[in-house]
Amino acid sequence: MRKIRVTVWNEFRHEKTYEAVKKVYPKGMHTVIAKALRAQEDMTARTATLDEPEHGLTEAVLAKTDVLIWWGHMAHHEVKDEIVDRVQKRVLNGMGLIPLHSGHMSKPFMRLMGTECNLKWREADEKERLWVVAPNHPIAAGLGEYFELPQEEMYGEFFDIPAPDETVLISWFAGGEVFRSGCCFNRGHGRIFYFRPGHETYRTYYDENVIRVITNAVRWCAPTPDAAVREFGNRKPLEDLG
Amino acid sequence: MRKIRVTVWNEFRHEKTYEAVKKVYPKGMHTVIAKALRAQEDMTARTATLDEPEHGLTEAVLAKTDVLIWWGHMAHHEVKDEIVDRVQKRVLNGMGLIPLHSGHMSKPFMRLMGTECNLKWREADEKERLWVVAPNHPIAAGLGEYFELPQEEMYGEFFDIPAPDETVLISWFAGGEVFRSGCCFNRGHGRIFYFRPGHETYRTYYDENVIRVITNAVRWCAPTPDAAVREFGNRKPLEDLG
Amino acid sequence: MRKIRVTVWNEFRHEKTYEAVKKVYPKGMHTVIAKALRAQEDMTARTATLDEPEHGLTEAVLAKTDVLIWWGHMAHHEVKDEIVDRVQKRVLNGMGLIPLHSGHMSKPFMRLMGTECNLKWREADEKERLWVVAPNHPIAAGLGEYFELPQEEMYGEFFDIPAPDETVLISWFAGGEVFRSGCCFNRGHGRIFYFRPGHETYRTYYDENVIRVITNAVRWCAPTPDAAVREFGNRKPLEDLG
Amino acid sequence: MRKIRVTVWNEFRHEKTYEAVKKVYPKGMHTVIAKALRAQEDMTARTATLDEPEHGLTEAVLAKTDVLIWWGHMAHHEVKDEIVDRVQKRVLNGMGLIPLHSGHMSKPFMRLMGTECNLKWREADEKERLWVVAPNHPIAAGLGEYFELPQEEMYGEFFDIPAPDETVLISWFAGGEVFRSGCCFNRGHGRIFYFRPGHETYRTYYDENVIRVITNAVRWCAPTPDAAVREFGNRKPLEDLG
Repeated sequence: MRKIRVTVWNEFRHEKTYEAVKKVYPKGMHTVIAKALRAQEDMTARTATLDEPEHGLTEAVLAKTDVLIWWGHMAHHEVKDEIVDRVQKRVLNGMGLIPLHSGHMSKPFMRLMGTECNLKWREADEKERLWVVAPNHPIAAGLGEYFELPQEEMYGEFFDIPAPDETVLISWFAGGEVFRSGCCFNRGHGRIFYFRPGHETYRTYYDENVIRVITNAVRWCAPTPDAAVREFGNRKPLEDLG
Repeated sequence: MRKIRVTVWNEFRHEKTYEAVKKVYPKGMHTVIAKALRAQEDMTARTATLDEPEHGLTEAVLAKTDVLIWWGHMAHHEVKDEIVDRVQKRVLNGMGLIPLHSGHMSKPFMRLMGTECNLKWREADEKERLWVVAPNHPIAAGLGEYFELPQEEMYGEFFDIPAPDETVLISWFAGGEVFRSGCCFNRGHGRIFYFRPGHETYRTYYDENVIRVITNAVRWCAPTPDAAVREFGNRKPLEDLG
Repeated sequence: MRKIRVTVWNEFRHEKTYEAVKKVYPKGMHTVIAKALRAQEDMTARTATLDEPEHGLTEAVLAKTDVLIWWGHMAHHEVKDEIVDRVQKRVLNGMGLIPLHSGHMSKPFMRLMGTECNLKWREADEKERLWVVAPNHPIAAGLGEYFELPQEEMYGEFFDIPAPDETVLISWFAGGEVFRSGCCFNRGHGRIFYFRPGHETYRTYYDENVIRVITNAVRWCAPTPDAAVREFGNRKPLEDLG
Repeated sequence: MRKIRVTVWNEFRHEKTYEAVKKVYPKGMHTVIAKALRAQEDMTARTATLDEPEHGLTEAVLAKTDVLIWWGHMAHHEVKDEIVDRVQKRVLNGMGLIPLHSGHMSKPFMRLMGTECNLKWREADEKERLWVVAPNHPIAAGLGEYFELPQEEMYGEFFDIPAPDETVLISWFAGGEVFRSGCCFNRGHGRIFYFRPGHETYRTYYDENVIRVITNAVRWCAPTPDAAVREFGNRKPLEDLG
């Protein structure tokens, strides 16, 4: 079976700007995530960042990407609309998309949701406990009833997204909020999984359960090899999605 | 416009058995809820309890009930299957059903869900904060972003129900759990709203926000006067649902 | 109770361009729909068209619009992005939106869906039969099990929209297609109902069942008077939505 | 990877009673379906029928069943409640269930849905065309935009089921009806896929597309090997579901 080809995209600015972040992710969050993916038997991973030409997301790269992971925050506005068009189109043609954490206000996610994607937030080093509310979902495979992150940024409801097609995880925060933290969406021929954790100052992407959710999500988002999607009329077939 | 006819059903055992409960609800929870409903311009309320003949839910009573509210707990097993059949049928023919709190394991609700309806629980006088996650839903009308109950029993996920058609409220508990607390279901021609709060030792059903949710839910669950439901083929029309 | 204020927006080009259309709708489809709405006790209706300044959708008009009905086709591309921004924002703040027929590719609907919104189509004067698949939904109130339009344009699946939050109607076409014809979406604090029928060369908007669906949809889409929506934090309150 | 263990259950009465059915399925529909499953690399299949002791569904058999396929019709009422309890419990603990055709009124399916599961029907040797409305769903993998069955029994809406968690197929019938023909449900830790075609007098279960849907559904319904389901508290782990 062909491996799932993942591209891990990172804005990669906080890591260069702030000492506290650089200390946790000296080579960027994307490298930590990509390394964890490469340890899986059934996937490959490359990386791409904002400051590369075309943000590293050329037509050629996207044509060889089955699932795109996206971390962005302080520079959402610098992402060129032309690249957003390209990503949106590729998702609608079957590519998986996994926006992480502050990616809730990234241009590609907002474009695909159609809503403001706003939420409440607080930085207070507080505990997050993520509860599984869809225990038979493939993205919950291997998790217990919940898992914890000792310190995270808080995100709280109301999270202004369309009602997810499936909600897999709901977070509890020590400060008093709840949040739909693992949200599945089908859009066009593609699949999207929004996953909440991952503030840049914490070691979240080194966490075993976080990586498990991300790798499960990669498998869930990946296009089915012989999916009906290619047959559909008004749409060009996915390039090189063998 | 004809008023919505509500029947408030209560097991009415805890109130007779335990001093602590009797103190809070001397005449039973059903009387407190019914009184609050009668204060609304657009609804009437009667009550029914387990120990009445046919549990107070005769064919005649159900035929004049647009929405049935249900509180039960220690005596779920005493509810006769014949009455459960009758309630289920009436819901499928268009009656609204609002199971409260421990009604999650009542026979009518379990019958209509098809699942175990189990959950986690803890009695620890802890704070519950209910967050609105569907702000445009009629059941959320008039609420703020959240409301609180200073002391409640905890109910925690995984709550073994089918994914709700709409989730309106998610609870946060001081002890570390989350719970889908306001859940909408369409079943047959009827509507069901499960609402979590209401442990018998607390003054929950005197709370203004709790009553607001219940009265909003009554309106949402009530059959549309000229609903398509009556026209449907293999099913006898709703009796007296004018 | 305050009446629901509806604005019926029409591109109003086909009626001026084609004799066949002019014959059916000499003053435009919007006037026929608005007249039907004005015959309801609980709503008022104004109209707006593409060629008016700001397409007739000034800030002042939108601030007094509870529900916007939208018919467009040949001139989708002429709708200014600035007005689309305004409509999207107003929907996310609580206004209802009812895109009709070829409005499936209108800019506001596509913006709110995030997908291509494409479909199959054929003009062959064929019969459409619309089946009710959610008989307890308020938008189905007063309909029978199905209703028919003797001649319509065919729209067929795959209709590239997000899975609707609720599907009320599915169409059968004589030529062999099916279509999700009545689709409910919640977006932000607003509600959207896409309704399929209404090709400009047929007398569809004179049909009693079509008008019934549209008026039911207006009521379903209208913001709840004291909805929670106004309380939400990062968003300015709806202006004049009393 | 361990193979998915499927049990194909058949009432197996029509085939013994009616010449027309015996001619099409001399050894029963279950044998035809099981043979097709055995041709897949990743699954094994056994069969069970109504007239075997315990209907062939002993605790031991169910403990070794990952996915149960169910065809029943004229003898629904002969299925013992004790066995229905067992099947329901096993589904809620993680087993997949695929009710076929007239299985819409089988006791296990009705029990798990909580509704009447009624529908319209007509035997008129008419054409059925099944449209894919969720092209990225694994159950649609390898299908075109639609597939046809030259002659089938008609099933029409309103189909009295809870709104499916995902709708994959909608049927068009020559006589004028539509039907949600491929419906996904999550219940407890199990997955259910209702699939409409399969009237006993037609060669439906020899059809390549029908078999493709069934085998895709087996894969979708099968419990994830290391699913969270086993960890859950109040429930005993799935036996032998390795």
